[in-house]
Amino acid sequence: MSTREIYDQFHRHIRRLGDLRTASHVLEWDQETYMPPKGATARGQVLGTLAGLAHDQLTSDRLGRWIDEMLAASSELDERQRANVREVQRDRERARKLPRELVERLSLAASRGLEVWKHARETNRFALFAPELEKQVELQREVAEAYGYTGHPYDALLEGYEPGARVADLDPLFRELEEVLVPLVRAIQTSETPIDSSILRGDFPPERQKKFALEVIAAIGFDLDAGRVDVSAHPFCSGFAPQDVRLTTRFSPRDLRPAVFGLFHEAGHGLYEQGLEPSERGLPIGQAVSMGVHESQSRLWENVIGRSRPFWQRFFPRIESLFPMLFGRDMEDFYRAINAVEPSFIRVEADEVTYNLHIILRYQIEKALLSRELAVKDLPTAWNEKMRTLLGVTPPDDAQGVLQDVHWSMGAFGYFPTYALGNLYAAQIHRQAQLELPRLWSDIAAGRFAPLREWLREKVHRNGRRWLPRQLLKEITGEPPSAEFFCDYLRRKYGELYRLG
Amino acid sequence: MSTREIYDQFHRHIRRLGDLRTASHVLEWDQETYMPPKGATARGQVLGTLAGLAHDQLTSDRLGRWIDEMLAASSELDERQRANVREVQRDRERARKLPRELVERLSLAASRGLEVWKHARETNRFALFAPELEKQVELQREVAEAYGYTGHPYDALLEGYEPGARVADLDPLFRELEEVLVPLVRAIQTSETPIDSSILRGDFPPERQKKFALEVIAAIGFDLDAGRVDVSAHPFCSGFAPQDVRLTTRFSPRDLRPAVFGLFHEAGHGLYEQGLEPSERGLPIGQAVSMGVHESQSRLWENVIGRSRPFWQRFFPRIESLFPMLFGRDMEDFYRAINAVEPSFIRVEADEVTYNLHIILRYQIEKALLSRELAVKDLPTAWNEKMRTLLGVTPPDDAQGVLQDVHWSMGAFGYFPTYALGNLYAAQIHRQAQLELPRLWSDIAAGRFAPLREWLREKVHRNGRRWLPRQLLKEITGEPPSAEFFCDYLRRKYGELYRLG
Repeated sequence: MSTREIYDQFHRHIRRLGDLRTASHVLEWDQETYMPPKGATARGQVLGTLAGLAHDQLTSDRLGRWIDEMLAASSELDERQRANVREVQRDRERARKLPRELVERLSLAASRGLEVWKHARETNRFALFAPELEKQVELQREVAEAYGYTGHPYDALLEGYEPGARVADLDPLFRELEEVLVPLVRAIQTSETPIDSSILRGDFPPERQKKFALEVIAAIGFDLDAGRVDVSAHPFCSGFAPQDVRLTTRFSPRDLRPAVFGLFHEAGHGLYEQGLEPSERGLPIGQAVSMGVHESQSRLWENVIGRSRPFWQRFFPRIESLFPMLFGRDMEDFYRAINAVEPSFIRVEADEVTYNLHIILRYQIEKALLSRELAVKDLPTAWNEKMRTLLGVTPPDDAQGVLQDVHWSMGAFGYFPTYALGNLYAAQIHRQAQLELPRLWSDIAAGRFAPLREWLREKVHRNGRRWLPRQLLKEITGEPPSAEFFCDYLRRKYGELYRLG
Repeated sequence: MSTREIYDQFHRHIRRLGDLRTASHVLEWDQETYMPPKGATARGQVLGTLAGLAHDQLTSDRLGRWIDEMLAASSELDERQRANVREVQRDRERARKLPRELVERLSLAASRGLEVWKHARETNRFALFAPELEKQVELQREVAEAYGYTGHPYDALLEGYEPGARVADLDPLFRELEEVLVPLVRAIQTSETPIDSSILRGDFPPERQKKFALEVIAAIGFDLDAGRVDVSAHPFCSGFAPQDVRLTTRFSPRDLRPAVFGLFHEAGHGLYEQGLEPSERGLPIGQAVSMGVHESQSRLWENVIGRSRPFWQRFFPRIESLFPMLFGRDMEDFYRAINAVEPSFIRVEADEVTYNLHIILRYQIEKALLSRELAVKDLPTAWNEKMRTLLGVTPPDDAQGVLQDVHWSMGAFGYFPTYALGNLYAAQIHRQAQLELPRLWSDIAAGRFAPLREWLREKVHRNGRRWLPRQLLKEITGEPPSAEFFCDYLRRKYGELYRLG
């Protein structure tokens, strides 16, 4: 067989693997949106079967032989093809390192962990969850050993969410962030011009929130003929194909922020998924490169754009017309209210400034658990101490503290840092967009989102997994990931909002 | 390996195959309910991959060896296990006759056909659909040749929906039906006591229709924690597991019949799916035996029970309280109106008496298309002529004629006869239920549905594919399928309603 023919076989094989994963994504979406309660057990079994089949396809010897032959003749492939081979090879090597019995133990521990965590959070009993969490930490250590690492064992887990990211890079990045954020939050809290958020308290009928949010996400370019919005307890975005991207949200009748900004956020993810190259569907070049870069797209639309003054110059008249609460109010009051900064207990409700402190806390704890510097039994104390140091608040109970996130219960260690990376990438990418699109803000104030969207499509979405995240940032902005742009962005925006010195 | 161990391997293998099929069912359900329009192409590809993988699992040599070994030592298996082996063997032999590439072409043609048909029906343009339909007919001929047959090529397709059914049996059954139904319809049309249906014309808000229908299906025993109801253009039931059964319906604001009786119908299917043995999920004993038997369950609840006088003695006060239209009206007028017989264009809206004539028309056309006695281009003319002969009416356009059904667009040839068989089986099974449950009608008038439901569960649902449909009917009623019970049922019910001689 010629290298070309081998590539075609490889392409079909990986495409089918992608189809299996898409099937899982549809089933998971349904599980979170419409599945009746008693369907959970059978659904878990079906998902297990699909995951097993996908694992078999990825680790098959046949695929290994094709990859070896193509690597030996890689000059006969073009750049996209080489990137697809390289990334499948990366996925395959990683998948082969986990023994099947460990995969099965992980899956069992995840479903059990999730159940116990739900119960523990509801009843505010960390002691209930502790034994499960201990098991998870043990398992994650085992996973890290199986994958292998040269620096910190945490590197082996990070790799699953942010390829190429290492503790040695994140430590200084997060240290810098902490050094900027802690005093910034303090300055905001002692500002002489605090923000009055009362404009956001009132009656916001969910149907109108939905109408407004759908109008906005359509305006920024989320194609509602190639996607849709449903309701789920935990909002998410799932791309089944660039032509079929599902967003979910949840509505609070007394607060429009969760649904409206939640949908801006998910639509940012959705634009990434809709912007992937359709002809490469299922192949690495047709996939999002990392959770961090994914999060950069959601945070860019949710915060950098969606919480900006020019954006609301465009949309305030519309939202004012939909909610009697807002009739005749001053846009500036609304703009200030949606940007109020206030240290709080719950990560998913945190503002732009305090959000990354919640992540730094989790990052430090995950590393310490993994390296045995912290024992699970000491976790609530460690959590509350760090909350005090970083945010100056103490959760009233564990349900609003260490028990608040689902991630650990399912064994998702190494995921949290990608949320902070997303914020940093968003600021860095957006700064570059401003340089290359000088009319960016006036376009946004006029409701013209195509220039930014198409710029992101070209610079980020279309490249898929062509480069690792670090290299992608360099290609786009000329510099590796840095905290500088995000800190500049916050200092400028919140310096003005809170009239800081 | 002992036979017991071989059976365990076989069981796991077939369970995984069932999981792949369930994944396809979820994706198909989503395609009909929530998928955005542009998602169709990618969805077709994913379904093609799943169908191909399921095909591989079913035709694998390993499975063949296990089956051979178990058949050679079948005395070591119990009756359920033997039935599972026998039925998997049946499915496998059939599947091995279809080359994998034909399976994938069928799946692709189905997704594409469905999209084109939707558009053609909406715009009333048969010409748009004709090329797809020609492709489908060609494919179905290819399929029939691949499966092989001894009588009519149509037998090869029928087998996929009603195992064991043959043209040689259906021809006389349907001839007898036609000979009874055509004069019965004529007698009803010339009856001196016609039915006044004006009570059903009015304003029936969909939300209240839904409320009422959900109350009723919950009362008859459809578990809404193990199932749900959504909206789709073409109502259907899909069972992902006995604990997760999806029904769909559609609402007409001026007519409660499509949604209300549609949901009684789908709930009949749903009770069958929820009544399957959960421990045998994915295995033949845990599967519905045929489309005809499935339809017997839906028609039994929709018509024999749902359009009976005792049923409305129970539910008329409730429906009266929900719709101002019905306040203070006479239940007897309502009962008569929902049983009005009137030849019409649309199969799914047809009454009990004319319904099977719509099926006979489709059965004759499918046979003729397959044997090349009829060309696709002549289909609208042939359709309208047969409508005149059988029902005495002519559709005003193709959307209400030849384009009305989804089946052909997806390549489902041989499916229609199972609807008529379902009506016959329903009457035959219900006659037996009346013999064994002497209080059946008084129970229903009192809202006690458990005795009939549990009887059906024991006699029909729990058996899964233990016997072929013909044998199942014999086991339950002592007689093979016959048109006699259905014709008796109609003559008695409509003789009284229309005061026929």
